[in-house]
Amino acid sequence: MIPFNVILFDDFETLDVYGPVEIIGKIPDKYGLGFYSVNGGVVVNSHQVSVNTLPFSEMDTGGVLLIPGGMGTRKLVDDADFIARLKALSQSAPYVLTVCTGSALLARTGLLRGKNATTNKRGFDWVSGVESGVHWARKARWVIDGKYYTSSGVSAGIDMTLGFISDVHGEKLAEIISGYVEYIWNRDKDSDPFAVD
Amino acid sequence: MIPFNVILFDDFETLDVYGPVEIIGKIPDKYGLGFYSVNGGVVVNSHQVSVNTLPFSEMDTGGVLLIPGGMGTRKLVDDADFIARLKALSQSAPYVLTVCTGSALLARTGLLRGKNATTNKRGFDWVSGVESGVHWARKARWVIDGKYYTSSGVSAGIDMTLGFISDVHGEKLAEIISGYVEYIWNRDKDSDPFAVD
Repeated sequence: MIPFNVILFDDFETLDVYGPVEIIGKIPDKYGLGFYSVNGGVVVNSHQVSVNTLPFSEMDTGGVLLIPGGMGTRKLVDDADFIARLKALSQSAPYVLTVCTGSALLARTGLLRGKNATTNKRGFDWVSGVESGVHWARKARWVIDGKYYTSSGVSAGIDMTLGFISDVHGEKLAEIISGYVEYIWNRDKDSDPFAVD
Repeated sequence: MIPFNVILFDDFETLDVYGPVEIIGKIPDKYGLGFYSVNGGVVVNSHQVSVNTLPFSEMDTGGVLLIPGGMGTRKLVDDADFIARLKALSQSAPYVLTVCTGSALLARTGLLRGKNATTNKRGFDWVSGVESGVHWARKARWVIDGKYYTSSGVSAGIDMTLGFISDVHGEKLAEIISGYVEYIWNRDKDSDPFAVD
């Protein structure tokens, strides 16, 4: 069983986290979910969600990493200690998945430089300004470049996670999961109705 | 601002809760989110989600009520004390929204008797057996009967919550929210690709 490590921080976006968690939670034989923040303890957001986390130091860093977005990323991109830790965790991970403005955090580590990626469409200008050395796609539900999966805003994380499952474990399993959670999977990563010009 | 009271219990289904929470969280001028369990404290589920809640006794019962589903409902339908408390909370609420097998809990209170409702499609036979006096719809993304909104499994809760916003505050607001969270809203409550014969 591979760890599936979710990064949390204050003011994360609720569904960026719990959409992918719902999908991964349906295959507990394959992935073990864990929630981590820098020092552990209670993390809260503007939706009054209050969640208990373990510290980064207790993470099995051989697992898949999920980096959500949310307003909290605006401060964290300038937190050199956080970014350094995130870089180390991302380097160890076999796959790194970001949702929404989570890609700004990953971009800040420098690991996306020269790679293809996408992000939240309303936050596009801010994210692409954080790190201009990334080939930012203006139109994509999600983008894959090697071990890096980056998705558009919020709900796109669900589609990307199903796409990740499909790539790694086969499309049939992704279909079974989407049926189980009665989710109408938007499986074309290049179809993006929320793209902005 | 109207309270939006989310009922939690061990082994709730993650996305049943956090899908609607993401939608409601986008209009903090209209709704104030709160998370409640019978006695308050930490609630956990099989996805390792660990969330902090307030006790039912601290709820402002004039708010909208959200009842999620999940494996935890299988035990709770036989917990007479919980069902009696849920009945009182549901009677006080101007609207009651259920997701997935959350409708089994609401049905057990007797408040759905003679009314139209739906539920998770894979759990259909179990839920409809819990309370046979309900007109259970085998094919519906969500069903409205007076103040009761009941949805199909998991992800259908997101569509229903947007439908609820549309009904109460206008379709334009529901569209703005779905754009903000980049969610492809399935707005036809009668279109149900997961219906079973």
